[in-house]
Amino acid sequence: MKNTNRPLILVTNDDGHFAPGIRALVEVASELGDCLVVAPDSPQSGMGHAITIHNPLRLNKVNSFGDVEAYECNGTPVDCVKLAKHVILKDRNIDLCVSGINHGSNASINIIYSGTMSAAMEASLEGINSIGFSLLDYSFDADFEPCKPFVKRIMSHVLEKGLFKTNLLNVNIPVMEDGQQIKGMRVCRQAEARWVEDFMEAEDPRGQKYYWLTGKFVNEDEGRDTDVYALEQGYISIVPSGHDLTKHDAIASLTRLNQL
Amino acid sequence: MKNTNRPLILVTNDDGHFAPGIRALVEVASELGDCLVVAPDSPQSGMGHAITIHNPLRLNKVNSFGDVEAYECNGTPVDCVKLAKHVILKDRNIDLCVSGINHGSNASINIIYSGTMSAAMEASLEGINSIGFSLLDYSFDADFEPCKPFVKRIMSHVLEKGLFKTNLLNVNIPVMEDGQQIKGMRVCRQAEARWVEDFMEAEDPRGQKYYWLTGKFVNEDEGRDTDVYALEQGYISIVPSGHDLTKHDAIASLTRLNQL
Repeated sequence: MKNTNRPLILVTNDDGHFAPGIRALVEVASELGDCLVVAPDSPQSGMGHAITIHNPLRLNKVNSFGDVEAYECNGTPVDCVKLAKHVILKDRNIDLCVSGINHGSNASINIIYSGTMSAAMEASLEGINSIGFSLLDYSFDADFEPCKPFVKRIMSHVLEKGLFKTNLLNVNIPVMEDGQQIKGMRVCRQAEARWVEDFMEAEDPRGQKYYWLTGKFVNEDEGRDTDVYALEQGYISIVPSGHDLTKHDAIASLTRLNQL
Repeated sequence: MKNTNRPLILVTNDDGHFAPGIRALVEVASELGDCLVVAPDSPQSGMGHAITIHNPLRLNKVNSFGDVEAYECNGTPVDCVKLAKHVILKDRNIDLCVSGINHGSNASINIIYSGTMSAAMEASLEGINSIGFSLLDYSFDADFEPCKPFVKRIMSHVLEKGLFKTNLLNVNIPVMEDGQQIKGMRVCRQAEARWVEDFMEAEDPRGQKYYWLTGKFVNEDEGRDTDVYALEQGYISIVPSGHDLTKHDAIASLTRLNQL
């Protein structure tokens, strides 16, 4: 890594270093600072906060991003962040970690399944201001151009002004119909939505059954202060996020367990 | 599955169906209801909330638990819960899901890396009362006997009285020194602790570098209302948990982003 006065920005994702989404993110980030890219060598969607315990991890330098120093890693998105911080950068200070731009939504409950957001959360646990970006288009050839100015504005705001009471943002970006423009940004809460699951059932050539996960995203949260609502209205959603899963308001109602 | 009047209890874990911890849990659960076991076919520690999207899933009936209906699955702990609910039980009502007993702590920040807790969380997202149990002993031959009476008391309390304002409990159990007894149970919050990471670096026989994750758990949270504190004092910790990662108190401080 060069030692310049520019901010040091760690870039990662869960779709792998060859995904168009991370290219768009590196383009934007390079305008604002010196980038280090460490990303999985294969798609890691749905990996949640998985870490690799039982296998050795490897890092290979790749030249997929021109002048930008970049590595592929055989581990999960969380592994990428840990290796970047502790092995490649030898615990040097990182000014910002950005993850994405994910091909597909990480709004609402998707945050807990998301490798993109887990990578950003891992950096936030290291005390680094972190942002996960996701575009609501799952296709490989999704068009990232319309969202780039917004991504740049959010990143440069965080670099200049910092964050307060959180160091992790979950940013989701709507896909607009032809002729429509993104309306702006909304800071909001995670919607109480869920996946209604189903499985495709089939038989392999040897007659053994197998199952393939499918499902439908259902939002029953009628709040107008949610990420899902903001996205439906054509706004980028920004949810300040954390890692405390305690249901604090349930503690009092359970203290009878102390007497069991 | 039999159709009796006894509660239907889904049992899973992340250490695999051959782990002693899940045997202990099935023994206790069988005293309280009819059990269905669906567990990974190999260890899945550290898998977080990973789901399998890119590969087919398989279920094989196993007879590792005597009379109890049991399946091994080639997927993650979360996959096991989804397949149990939607494929094996065809959306039949489940009265309780228990996950574990994990070999090792899932207190504090460990919850976000934990396959044990993610399986329980997945069931809670399906509206099922769910409990993840973990013993603070990583060894394969950990002694689960001392904790069984507590595990049974918690399970039977939840079956009889239900839960309120949460449907997910993260239960961690201390290992006592010889002659000492577990002191009781404490309902508490997740401690603000973290892992200080390190990597073992080595070379394979072909001279290629590899890295193996290691690290130290550090608790800088001085609160006496935390799971880590309760465990240090010899109590079982019970943290009511959820899936909303929003930092609600940070929303107001970020609304300036709406104007960017």
